[in-house]
Amino acid sequence: MRAMYFGGDYNPEQWSPETWKEDAELMQWAGVNLATVGVFSWSNLEPRPGQYEFGWLDTVLDLLADHGIGVDLATPTASPPPWFSLKHPEALTVTAAGTRLTHGSRDTYCVCSPAYREAAARICSALADRYAEHPALTMWHVHNEYGTMCYCDQAAAAFRGWLRYRYGDLDALNVAWTTSFWSQRYSDWAEVMPPRATQYLVNPAQFVDYRRFWSDELLAAFQEQQAILRTATPDVPVTTNFVFGNWVPVDHHRWADAVDLVAIDNYPSGTGLEPEEQTAFAADQARGWARRGEWLLMEQASSAISDGKRLATKEPGRMSRMSLSHVARGSRGALFFQWRASAGGSEQFHAAMVPHAGQESRRFLEVCELGGLLGRLDEITGSEVEAEVAVLWDNVAWWAMQGTHLPSSELDYLEAVRSAHRQFWRAGVGVDVVHPSADLTPYRLVVVPSLYLIDPAHAAVLREYVAAGGHVLITYFSGIVDPNCRVFLGGYPGAFRELLGIRVEEFYPVAETELADAGKARWWSELLGPEGAEVVDVYAGGPLAGSPAITRNSFGGGEAWYVSTQLEDAGYQRLVETICRRAGVELPNLPDGVEMVRRRQDGTTWTFLLNHGAAEAAIEIDGHDLVSKGPIEGVLTLKSGDQAVVERSS
Amino acid sequence: MRAMYFGGDYNPEQWSPETWKEDAELMQWAGVNLATVGVFSWSNLEPRPGQYEFGWLDTVLDLLADHGIGVDLATPTASPPPWFSLKHPEALTVTAAGTRLTHGSRDTYCVCSPAYREAAARICSALADRYAEHPALTMWHVHNEYGTMCYCDQAAAAFRGWLRYRYGDLDALNVAWTTSFWSQRYSDWAEVMPPRATQYLVNPAQFVDYRRFWSDELLAAFQEQQAILRTATPDVPVTTNFVFGNWVPVDHHRWADAVDLVAIDNYPSGTGLEPEEQTAFAADQARGWARRGEWLLMEQASSAISDGKRLATKEPGRMSRMSLSHVARGSRGALFFQWRASAGGSEQFHAAMVPHAGQESRRFLEVCELGGLLGRLDEITGSEVEAEVAVLWDNVAWWAMQGTHLPSSELDYLEAVRSAHRQFWRAGVGVDVVHPSADLTPYRLVVVPSLYLIDPAHAAVLREYVAAGGHVLITYFSGIVDPNCRVFLGGYPGAFRELLGIRVEEFYPVAETELADAGKARWWSELLGPEGAEVVDVYAGGPLAGSPAITRNSFGGGEAWYVSTQLEDAGYQRLVETICRRAGVELPNLPDGVEMVRRRQDGTTWTFLLNHGAAEAAIEIDGHDLVSKGPIEGVLTLKSGDQAVVERSS
Amino acid sequence: MRAMYFGGDYNPEQWSPETWKEDAELMQWAGVNLATVGVFSWSNLEPRPGQYEFGWLDTVLDLLADHGIGVDLATPTASPPPWFSLKHPEALTVTAAGTRLTHGSRDTYCVCSPAYREAAARICSALADRYAEHPALTMWHVHNEYGTMCYCDQAAAAFRGWLRYRYGDLDALNVAWTTSFWSQRYSDWAEVMPPRATQYLVNPAQFVDYRRFWSDELLAAFQEQQAILRTATPDVPVTTNFVFGNWVPVDHHRWADAVDLVAIDNYPSGTGLEPEEQTAFAADQARGWARRGEWLLMEQASSAISDGKRLATKEPGRMSRMSLSHVARGSRGALFFQWRASAGGSEQFHAAMVPHAGQESRRFLEVCELGGLLGRLDEITGSEVEAEVAVLWDNVAWWAMQGTHLPSSELDYLEAVRSAHRQFWRAGVGVDVVHPSADLTPYRLVVVPSLYLIDPAHAAVLREYVAAGGHVLITYFSGIVDPNCRVFLGGYPGAFRELLGIRVEEFYPVAETELADAGKARWWSELLGPEGAEVVDVYAGGPLAGSPAITRNSFGGGEAWYVSTQLEDAGYQRLVETICRRAGVELPNLPDGVEMVRRRQDGTTWTFLLNHGAAEAAIEIDGHDLVSKGPIEGVLTLKSGDQAVVERSS
Repeated sequence: MRAMYFGGDYNPEQWSPETWKEDAELMQWAGVNLATVGVFSWSNLEPRPGQYEFGWLDTVLDLLADHGIGVDLATPTASPPPWFSLKHPEALTVTAAGTRLTHGSRDTYCVCSPAYREAAARICSALADRYAEHPALTMWHVHNEYGTMCYCDQAAAAFRGWLRYRYGDLDALNVAWTTSFWSQRYSDWAEVMPPRATQYLVNPAQFVDYRRFWSDELLAAFQEQQAILRTATPDVPVTTNFVFGNWVPVDHHRWADAVDLVAIDNYPSGTGLEPEEQTAFAADQARGWARRGEWLLMEQASSAISDGKRLATKEPGRMSRMSLSHVARGSRGALFFQWRASAGGSEQFHAAMVPHAGQESRRFLEVCELGGLLGRLDEITGSEVEAEVAVLWDNVAWWAMQGTHLPSSELDYLEAVRSAHRQFWRAGVGVDVVHPSADLTPYRLVVVPSLYLIDPAHAAVLREYVAAGGHVLITYFSGIVDPNCRVFLGGYPGAFRELLGIRVEEFYPVAETELADAGKARWWSELLGPEGAEVVDVYAGGPLAGSPAITRNSFGGGEAWYVSTQLEDAGYQRLVETICRRAGVELPNLPDGVEMVRRRQDGTTWTFLLNHGAAEAAIEIDGHDLVSKGPIEGVLTLKSGDQAVVERSS
Repeated sequence: MRAMYFGGDYNPEQWSPETWKEDAELMQWAGVNLATVGVFSWSNLEPRPGQYEFGWLDTVLDLLADHGIGVDLATPTASPPPWFSLKHPEALTVTAAGTRLTHGSRDTYCVCSPAYREAAARICSALADRYAEHPALTMWHVHNEYGTMCYCDQAAAAFRGWLRYRYGDLDALNVAWTTSFWSQRYSDWAEVMPPRATQYLVNPAQFVDYRRFWSDELLAAFQEQQAILRTATPDVPVTTNFVFGNWVPVDHHRWADAVDLVAIDNYPSGTGLEPEEQTAFAADQARGWARRGEWLLMEQASSAISDGKRLATKEPGRMSRMSLSHVARGSRGALFFQWRASAGGSEQFHAAMVPHAGQESRRFLEVCELGGLLGRLDEITGSEVEAEVAVLWDNVAWWAMQGTHLPSSELDYLEAVRSAHRQFWRAGVGVDVVHPSADLTPYRLVVVPSLYLIDPAHAAVLREYVAAGGHVLITYFSGIVDPNCRVFLGGYPGAFRELLGIRVEEFYPVAETELADAGKARWWSELLGPEGAEVVDVYAGGPLAGSPAITRNSFGGGEAWYVSTQLEDAGYQRLVETICRRAGVELPNLPDGVEMVRRRQDGTTWTFLLNHGAAEAAIEIDGHDLVSKGPIEGVLTLKSGDQAVVERSS
Repeated sequence: MRAMYFGGDYNPEQWSPETWKEDAELMQWAGVNLATVGVFSWSNLEPRPGQYEFGWLDTVLDLLADHGIGVDLATPTASPPPWFSLKHPEALTVTAAGTRLTHGSRDTYCVCSPAYREAAARICSALADRYAEHPALTMWHVHNEYGTMCYCDQAAAAFRGWLRYRYGDLDALNVAWTTSFWSQRYSDWAEVMPPRATQYLVNPAQFVDYRRFWSDELLAAFQEQQAILRTATPDVPVTTNFVFGNWVPVDHHRWADAVDLVAIDNYPSGTGLEPEEQTAFAADQARGWARRGEWLLMEQASSAISDGKRLATKEPGRMSRMSLSHVARGSRGALFFQWRASAGGSEQFHAAMVPHAGQESRRFLEVCELGGLLGRLDEITGSEVEAEVAVLWDNVAWWAMQGTHLPSSELDYLEAVRSAHRQFWRAGVGVDVVHPSADLTPYRLVVVPSLYLIDPAHAAVLREYVAAGGHVLITYFSGIVDPNCRVFLGGYPGAFRELLGIRVEEFYPVAETELADAGKARWWSELLGPEGAEVVDVYAGGPLAGSPAITRNSFGGGEAWYVSTQLEDAGYQRLVETICRRAGVELPNLPDGVEMVRRRQDGTTWTFLLNHGAAEAAIEIDGHDLVSKGPIEGVLTLKSGDQAVVERSS
């Protein structure tokens, strides 16, 4: 099967067999071709230790197969049954403050617990044995949204093992963690602890290493199941769904090497353009993890998205545009959580493809329309997404930026990167979001927003990239510490001073400031002296008035820009356009509120155009629109909320 | 004795015997006829296990009896002495996060602890034995403000016992709690836990059941003491003081069947009209629990009431008006916490009848005046409070609305009900606040604000009420889930769709919105389609512009209104007046800021008029004013802050 | 050596021996003459139990001695090494909620742990033995910033011991703590607990006593080390660095008797004039603790100071002015944390004398200039700081004001005292901040801001002071409770009614209010009746409109003023100037933004003038400026940010 996936999580255990039949028919009607089954079914599959109940799942899988619907079969290991917790209280999660959590929600286990790992392998094997040959089996979905952390003694022991492997001996650990500060020098491995609740500021290197360890430990758990499943079904891809959030101790860049298909759950928040922009960023990240290849949107909401206080219901059309935004950026389809809205339970108000109101609803109608549209986009799979610009992103640097000891509590790595990405998104310029270790040669411009922590080897790659003619834009508080969270001494930004031709003596965190040319800025300013760079803009007020704020340095065949503060959008936008022009990045001319992404393969291009704006928009383009199924000659007119996928062969 | 009670909590253990004598004389002077003694006296009555010291209490009770003051004698079980906690650490409260609390405040015990229950029964028996025949004994006051929750292992065991009784077998529990979601299916009773700290969202049915269980467990503890006291003194009423607050796991409606007299502690907060309105609502609730009969204001503050940040001192007159507001609504009197302000301890700044400044104070003067006034209102006891409107209120529905998984964190059941009640209060229309199971036949109009959880049987009663000619006003997010917190499927509001003639497809939580006619609204809107109902008002902007917002449905002989958002006061007031007119509810014509309540018995009416406003007010009325002790002919003139009780016999 | 100290914390264990040499030379260059070494070196000095590594410290101390730099040698007991925590888990801090903290930060020990006390004495003795004769040894620095609290069982046992000593028997404790309230009466010492997490409001007397106990317990720990060090080096002063903060359970007034030199760490926060004002207050407090003698600024930041959200970098000149502000008020010098900015660890972004940018930096240049200036101020040491006004401050009263049971959550003792101090600071009037037990005879005016808790003996001293002709200004919520937190009955402010000639019946906490003459006020108002006092100002609105707000009472030969609310600065300033004039306190005429402090000795005066303002300022004065090294004849002109120390001999 080489097709766009359409469907979502399906939880038949919540419904009667009569509903199963109705579901299969409705799915078929809506164009669903992939259902994720079994994600939280452990207590229904193994209601007592070692006692399995597969009958209901057999029936459901047969029914789906009969209706031509593939199954992304999940191992249910994200939530052990209550009997497991009662039998193994030592496997329950412990918080940093020492509270042992109780079951009654989901994900209440410690992945470092041997009892948990054994039980997980058993249920995984049982599923593999039973369904390896099932005709519906399309994909394996291991676990769900890996990310649960724990601070228990079993986790502490595993952490020590990981540290021994990483550092070899305690002396190396003591150096890496700067334990000479605050009398933290270790004399025995047994003394090393997770960053549990402590008196005052935590050791920043210990904090980051605990997340690195946790990412590796979760990955090991994933790979144990993957090995079982691969043995049973060598040809069925095995994946898991990545989840976003600053609490997630998963280095997705490393994980992407392990999964057969990068898959993400994307729940953007807010109203207006904000969730659209978040979606573009998430999708560009996913493609970066997939090394510019294909990936899959495993979960999204059919409607309500949280804006912090309340669920913001998606207006008509938004669900389709958001789905297309993912597909445009390389997703192999659009899946949802979940098929049918739960009557009870903690997520009973989570949006679904079939809402509480049932199939006779505006929501289900739009689902069906989307299913139809995706069916017409199969040929796009495998094509390349155009991008001349790369924005660097590193989960590990993010963890380092979560330290509470930094000069300002306002520093926000995610927003620093998103705001950089936003300027290109608004300008209609395709962007890859990639890891600092990525191959940069395909790009005309590389953007490095607030990359606080960086490996000197990656800084060297960036230097070579510019020397060879590349363009780079680096923003404030970048290149400050090495992977052990130790400052590069002699003047900031230590890792990039030579490349940028500048030296920063002191940080001046501020609520807001202003630049002579680029206008308003926030959070941060720096006392900066050029050492070869040209001053492009200066601070217009405050203690740094007249002092350099933005610089440009010729380095080898390329140019390196530095912005020492968090620009507001208006000035940021202008600056980015200036840099694009100097770097030869194409700037399309788009109406306000219209998003554009272009894909290409073998002489054919597909241009995705999404009108998020309130007004009708006209775009100059020729080709065939796969949405309206009609030809476009010269000008495409998109009503507010509408979309097009214009195919053109050269 | 058939009289208005006047007095309050009296804590002689904090004072010297010389002060006791002064107290008895001052009480007599002020008109006090009931003192609540012994509420927190356990460590003074039983300073060591089994070693009693009753001497001081004998003296105090004799002294009060000698001065003609009755005693509401309390069992001191709300706070075990320190020796008890040291001997029974397992009886100390444990929080949901597992912290075992220490004594050093009050209420630090778990009601599920057998050791606690035994000790409580012992001290209760000792008091009953000693004072059964005491001439001062007027009433028994069991415990104090029942409401302390606990999550310890003893509580868990008791919870399991309660669940076994409620559900019979685990299969029924699994269905009721929707444990098919998130792998929560139980295979053994031992696996079931209180909703302790867990990883993520708690199971909503478990959350509500834990409060139901807790209410029943506290009630059992109350009834154990009540049985002891009834045996000792069959003719002395036994009560306890209900306390308000979203943290209180007590279903007052059920409890009201058990107590001999409904009694409440009422501590409204804020400044201006807000505390007056809260008082009216609390008093109307109390009367509802008392099945429209008499009840008792057991505690209020003589002065300062918290507005969250600070104590707001009651201006001259407010204490009296607030006391009268309770009496007007059925209270058998006005009692205070406490008689004499404590010199030390955690509530040393709590207002008192005799403040720190002593009897030579404005505050004590007003107390004496109030005592005099209440003495003239004895004949009112037993009369009926007029009310043509019922507002439904259900503590269990409130608990269900406290779920953190709901579509908006702004949904506030208490405010939804209070704001409905407020419109009638402002219009001078008498309201009963009653349980959904109440007999609705006495009312011309029934209001159902945001009744998220409802028993289908109660929904049926409402349907019959309207079919028989009644009028009903139901507001947004009502009739959504059944008592197991499971959604009524097929379109909201499942329990009321037929009655209302509408179907809601989706919720649109919002910060604010606007209606074409009713004006501004908050928190919520709904995508609503009429199925027989007439559209009365529509949304005026946003994604639902033009879509129905308020509807009216003819159903049998009556009418059912629906409002799909939280109206602001101005529009809400107009709507309520419109509905009142259609329902034949009398709308009196009152000056701004004047509150009115009417009582009647055997051809006599008493009209309570309280002028909370800043201006003098004139009200057309005839009769005899029990406050000013003069005749009213045609027009009563009330100065700002003044009050009247106009008696008129037909 | 009789000199101004200049230098700071030096942590050589973080650096290589090559850097040590560079450090010694740079220190010499900068004029450093005192380095605090070893503060957190325990795990480097004793990496395994009983196994010492002194070699590196020998080298460093020799090097410093060779460069003429004295050493303030610290005992490293503020942070035990990880091996200690592993060996003695019972010595780890436990929070009030029962969480046992883990090492990984600093200060993770309970001072009540015998194992900790023994280990601390051992390392202290080892240091004393080794370095008693070292030529660099100038001062002993015991521990660091004493202040860590704990609620473990060992702390509970020690608390009981302290209570037995304080109260003798349980009856006395029961009276002092008002345990008759809420059934808290103790029948056995074993029942008494620290104020751990409890159900509701904590007993206020227990809360305050726990802090008193903790202060004494920490002091005992300090004195154990002091005794060891004094035995080894009878002539070397022993001190420790006091730290500010409402969390610090240290009664500095009592401690000041024990240390050989009062030393403070001062980290003011904010921007503009606020940190300058905080500095003046902190320095005046330090001098009060030093009984008007000399003291030492042990730590300050060379630059960034937190404003809550972010570090506010000190503009050029501010570091010098702030240093001089301390010296002007009696500090024996200006020391910093720390010499060289750490590359790693939790305080890697803490400001330092040598920043990350290195010695080629604006910051280090200003450090060198300051070193030069301090070198010219040696002769000032030992001179008296002029002050005609005393402001009372009591740490114990502060703890009592932290109760959550007070009538307003806005009451803020620190701000009440600071705002009083601020009015004099702005007016250029010298102020001593002293304890209520201080000798008041040297002062023309004594200010008593919101002194909620007071010993009646101290109130008597104040009465005698006024009777003998003194002037006093007392502000709202003063004299309310005795040292056991029991209210003085009969009318507020019980301890001062006679002196003030007033009686307060009730408190009226408010958000804001207004006075007829003094203008706007905040937080608080009082229903006040004069009993002999003259009404100076009245409330201009609200429920107390027309009622007295400010009064003045003639008492013996003096005058006693009362202000019943928290005045805003403008009105407060005018009132303070009026009172100064009546009390004969000199009011200098200073330009806006210029701070002045005067010192004198043997006929010589030194006038410190700091221009914090944005404009150039001219001040009439004659003498010799030690900053500019030139004569001043008639008028001193100070540019914005500049400073002068004008010496004049009579």
